[in-house]
Amino acid sequence: MSHSTDRSAPGAEAPSRRRFLNTAAAASLAGVGLAACTDKSGAGSAPAASAADAHAATGGAANATHLKPGELDTYYGLWSGGHTGDLRVLGMPSGRELLRIPCFVPDALVGWGQTNESKKVMGTRADGSLKYTVGDTHHTHASYKDGNYDGRYAWVNDKINARIARIRLDYFICDKITELPNVQGFHGIFPDKADPVDPKINYTTRVFCGAEFAIPLPNNGKDADKPEAYRSLFTCVDAESMEVRWQVVIDGNCDLVATSYDGKLAATNQYNTEKGVHYPDMMSAERDACVFFNVARIEQAVKDGKFKTYGDSKVPVVDGTRKSNEDPKTALTAYVSVPKNPHGVNASPDAKYFICAGKLSPTATVIELAKVLDWFDGKLDKVDSTIVAEVEIGLGPLHTAFDGRGNAYTTLFLDSQIVKWNVDAAIKFHAGDKSAKYVVDRLDVQYQPGHLNASQSETRMADGKWLAVGCKFSKDRFLPVGPLHAENEQIIDISGEKMVLIADHPVRGEPHDFVIFKRELLRPKQIYEMDFFPHAVKDVKESGVTRNGKKVTVKLASQAPAYTLPEFTVKKGDEVTIILTNHDKVEDLTHGFAIAKYGINFIVNPQETASVTFTADKAGVFWCYCTHFCHALHLEMRSRMIVEA
Amino acid sequence: MSHSTDRSAPGAEAPSRRRFLNTAAAASLAGVGLAACTDKSGAGSAPAASAADAHAATGGAANATHLKPGELDTYYGLWSGGHTGDLRVLGMPSGRELLRIPCFVPDALVGWGQTNESKKVMGTRADGSLKYTVGDTHHTHASYKDGNYDGRYAWVNDKINARIARIRLDYFICDKITELPNVQGFHGIFPDKADPVDPKINYTTRVFCGAEFAIPLPNNGKDADKPEAYRSLFTCVDAESMEVRWQVVIDGNCDLVATSYDGKLAATNQYNTEKGVHYPDMMSAERDACVFFNVARIEQAVKDGKFKTYGDSKVPVVDGTRKSNEDPKTALTAYVSVPKNPHGVNASPDAKYFICAGKLSPTATVIELAKVLDWFDGKLDKVDSTIVAEVEIGLGPLHTAFDGRGNAYTTLFLDSQIVKWNVDAAIKFHAGDKSAKYVVDRLDVQYQPGHLNASQSETRMADGKWLAVGCKFSKDRFLPVGPLHAENEQIIDISGEKMVLIADHPVRGEPHDFVIFKRELLRPKQIYEMDFFPHAVKDVKESGVTRNGKKVTVKLASQAPAYTLPEFTVKKGDEVTIILTNHDKVEDLTHGFAIAKYGINFIVNPQETASVTFTADKAGVFWCYCTHFCHALHLEMRSRMIVEA
Repeated sequence: MSHSTDRSAPGAEAPSRRRFLNTAAAASLAGVGLAACTDKSGAGSAPAASAADAHAATGGAANATHLKPGELDTYYGLWSGGHTGDLRVLGMPSGRELLRIPCFVPDALVGWGQTNESKKVMGTRADGSLKYTVGDTHHTHASYKDGNYDGRYAWVNDKINARIARIRLDYFICDKITELPNVQGFHGIFPDKADPVDPKINYTTRVFCGAEFAIPLPNNGKDADKPEAYRSLFTCVDAESMEVRWQVVIDGNCDLVATSYDGKLAATNQYNTEKGVHYPDMMSAERDACVFFNVARIEQAVKDGKFKTYGDSKVPVVDGTRKSNEDPKTALTAYVSVPKNPHGVNASPDAKYFICAGKLSPTATVIELAKVLDWFDGKLDKVDSTIVAEVEIGLGPLHTAFDGRGNAYTTLFLDSQIVKWNVDAAIKFHAGDKSAKYVVDRLDVQYQPGHLNASQSETRMADGKWLAVGCKFSKDRFLPVGPLHAENEQIIDISGEKMVLIADHPVRGEPHDFVIFKRELLRPKQIYEMDFFPHAVKDVKESGVTRNGKKVTVKLASQAPAYTLPEFTVKKGDEVTIILTNHDKVEDLTHGFAIAKYGINFIVNPQETASVTFTADKAGVFWCYCTHFCHALHLEMRSRMIVEA
Repeated sequence: MSHSTDRSAPGAEAPSRRRFLNTAAAASLAGVGLAACTDKSGAGSAPAASAADAHAATGGAANATHLKPGELDTYYGLWSGGHTGDLRVLGMPSGRELLRIPCFVPDALVGWGQTNESKKVMGTRADGSLKYTVGDTHHTHASYKDGNYDGRYAWVNDKINARIARIRLDYFICDKITELPNVQGFHGIFPDKADPVDPKINYTTRVFCGAEFAIPLPNNGKDADKPEAYRSLFTCVDAESMEVRWQVVIDGNCDLVATSYDGKLAATNQYNTEKGVHYPDMMSAERDACVFFNVARIEQAVKDGKFKTYGDSKVPVVDGTRKSNEDPKTALTAYVSVPKNPHGVNASPDAKYFICAGKLSPTATVIELAKVLDWFDGKLDKVDSTIVAEVEIGLGPLHTAFDGRGNAYTTLFLDSQIVKWNVDAAIKFHAGDKSAKYVVDRLDVQYQPGHLNASQSETRMADGKWLAVGCKFSKDRFLPVGPLHAENEQIIDISGEKMVLIADHPVRGEPHDFVIFKRELLRPKQIYEMDFFPHAVKDVKESGVTRNGKKVTVKLASQAPAYTLPEFTVKKGDEVTIILTNHDKVEDLTHGFAIAKYGINFIVNPQETASVTFTADKAGVFWCYCTHFCHALHLEMRSRMIVEA
């Protein structure tokens, strides 16, 4: 079986790559002060391999991600869905999408946004309609215990409407959504890994959220023309209750978020310390900052009543601005300067460093966490002395992953590369040892990479096997399908000295962040317990229609290939609630329930209960049928709703 | 890199397969008269290979679907999305999903269901909200010319709300949706391949639609308790205008649909000639039927005014019931009997036969089209003499594909197998030659297969290379992700005598039908033409805000990394229409436009224009930002909507 390509082969791609950069992704950069990457000794030591070279070097390695029929993946991946508003579950290393979990956006398969149960999670207006129907998920992270994932929860943000969703990792469902007050553009998100004070709490109890867009406080239309009064807040959400615990008002904005393994520090990168509202203004300063939050001190300040509230919100807001936090001994925040418009901030698996990627600066900045704690303790004179390395790595650094062997992998958006660099060598180089070759390898990717992550990278157990990279442009890597292109998630083998590109995977726009972890860390439940649902129709004899004025409740059960009611009758104008419990107990035996011409559909997994409420506004016969293939007699699995005129 | 499996290996799966069948998919079948498959000589000649055997036989064949980085697929696949309501575009043989095209259901990425342009296609209520937000697509087929796909259109159905959508295959977008009158449960769909009268029209001009659920005509609540008066209609839609041309009232229901290559015949299988409304009633008859429609005669009857209309619909409905069509010389329809509750009907690529799969009968029925035309011409005494074979192939036959070498491939839902059988040998066996071994091969699939299709199978150019099969249950084939399981689309190499299972692909529920064709047949456009959009903001100087009473229009253009308006001001209570044109011309350079806290997001591909209309019901500053990664300064690409109190 041969596979000819009628588009540019991998080996021929360099010219189109450069042309692309020149015409699109880098347009206007020269005009706004992009720093050039000069080829210094430490940075320039490893020339980039082309994809063709790298692939040729692998021999049979391309088989590694291609599982034989029936073989299972060895890692789970949780992928944010971007403006599809969902969370995606991938099997790794195959890259196969196993599930999409609807969170912020309705999902017609599940009935998410249509069932009463899901509407309660999503939030509704006074008239019962959904408050929001779009979302923009960027970052997803899972709950920790002892520095590794514990399989309880994952969280994901919605940037458009400033919401955070929690996903239960037993049933793989979104069970809570919280809208953050006082902020817009909630972007970065990270759970803590331990309590800053109580060493017994060695697991996640807080989730930190960074707000990117500064707004007037309160945002009531009065100070719209005073951008200097706009503020961004950093928010702490309780991992269990999902209530907002506290917020911190800061100077500048919040971008990505990271947390330390000891629970004492959280941080956010800032690309707009200038507080500009127009994009050239956001780039005027040569250095921006990474703001560190002293969690214990902030919570003490809240306890001590040292906070404000804004507008209708009752959330305590403490003051984390530069001016109020100049004394290290009492400071709630520390502003460590990093070059021009940084983007990602990532914690190394040895728990020692946060690494800030420079975006408009070709650098990575390594900040030593012990020194940040020293500064808060008054033991360090200058906060910027926490920086132990600031080295050039290439154009457009965005995010960093780790292999647990001392190496960092950073995406270079403008170079369309991943650079592998050694953190210790970078520290030595920064300290003056110009013979330290910190760049280990470079690999071309296709094209314009954003996030990347390695297997177990964001835990103490980084294992350095697989790296995935989310390329924002796929361009010529897949068959053309019209103007909207898939993104390209690429899978790279990082088990050796050289990175090896293994596979391209098209994905629907637009995954941002993701985590990859060993499958042993999860024990999902494949069947619900009927008691999980308060309204379950536990006995099929409960099936029937009950009326309370114009409110009608229809209780049904499903058992392949039939519903317990072959028909039911209501009156035109009734408010009808249908409650359906799936009595099938066999794994994978899901049923659907659609009502023809009423635009209703939802599913019930084994032992699940779901309900919908609607007005019977049309008289006639309306067939109800199973939409989820269940049985040889699936097509015959029906009921009839008779709406009397 | 080794991949251990902690669940049952392929070779160990037989017990769980049988246990599964016993507890779920086959439950209750014995009680409703399922015919047993006795092991007759022709049917039993080829024992099933296990997946492990088959895979072991392939040697290095498993590489065949795994493309190297940068390699392109050689076939397109169009996959219906089931109750996700979309159409999916896959690359084959990799099985990678390249695009989901929203049709019947809102899509938060594109802004489908949110932009004014998409709402016009989808249909709205008087208050401007969407009429429907769910869909259930089952069957997709593409337009023909000279017996092959011509790359103009594809169509897909929505069973829940009886709608048909058309997809333009240049831009890969849904451009028209039509709701069918007088029907519920619109399920089968097939375009014609030529005109029945005019030989110059050797391409698709009609699309036929079968309605599964019988309803009272008109369905106004009056005859709900008279199931004997319920009727199903067969519908013809104009391929260009997408208006409904005519309908035919028939006895029994419509399931799948097929059309002949000469344009003269369309047909639909019927699993419920009994017109039962409860599922045991739908299975009482030992034989159901395949109804043939004489297209030319039906259109002449419409011209001659021999039709009725029902309710508000003006669509002409002709009488295709058995009683009115007993005389072959004037009959509009012919009812060919097939065994108990058949499902799929498929046209062979040699243009000679329609093959009906038995579902509750373990048989395939081969109907010779020339003989059907003979019957309409009065040359054949009994309509069932058109049956040239009716042979046992296995339990639960659902759908049939072809390899262009005389072999048919039929899914066996209950056996969880694909059976490869030779059509000519089956005809010989049926004619009395009991030595004819028509079953060539059997292959276990995982599990409970519904549709299948082979590369180019539904054209004259069937090439017998790849077969895909949509397995309804995946059970243990992927990492567990909670109660909702992925379906399993499997890819099979059919280029040799034996079928070889190559790969498992998880897909979100629930693809039904699909077509696979050579990539050379499409020439998609990667960039829009600005003139395609009547409201395009062609000159950036048009950018600005214009007011007409409380109606405000905001015209914007995007060019990476900026919108042409860094801010715009409206008043609380205004009805705001935002029109955005993407001036970027670079392939893949899509921008998004979200408004924080207003729940608005949509994208504009290169040179595309889109618009949204909403009420500015909250005062304050609301950041607008680009949601589709476009540039190193993507995060800085913003505007501000200032809503004055």
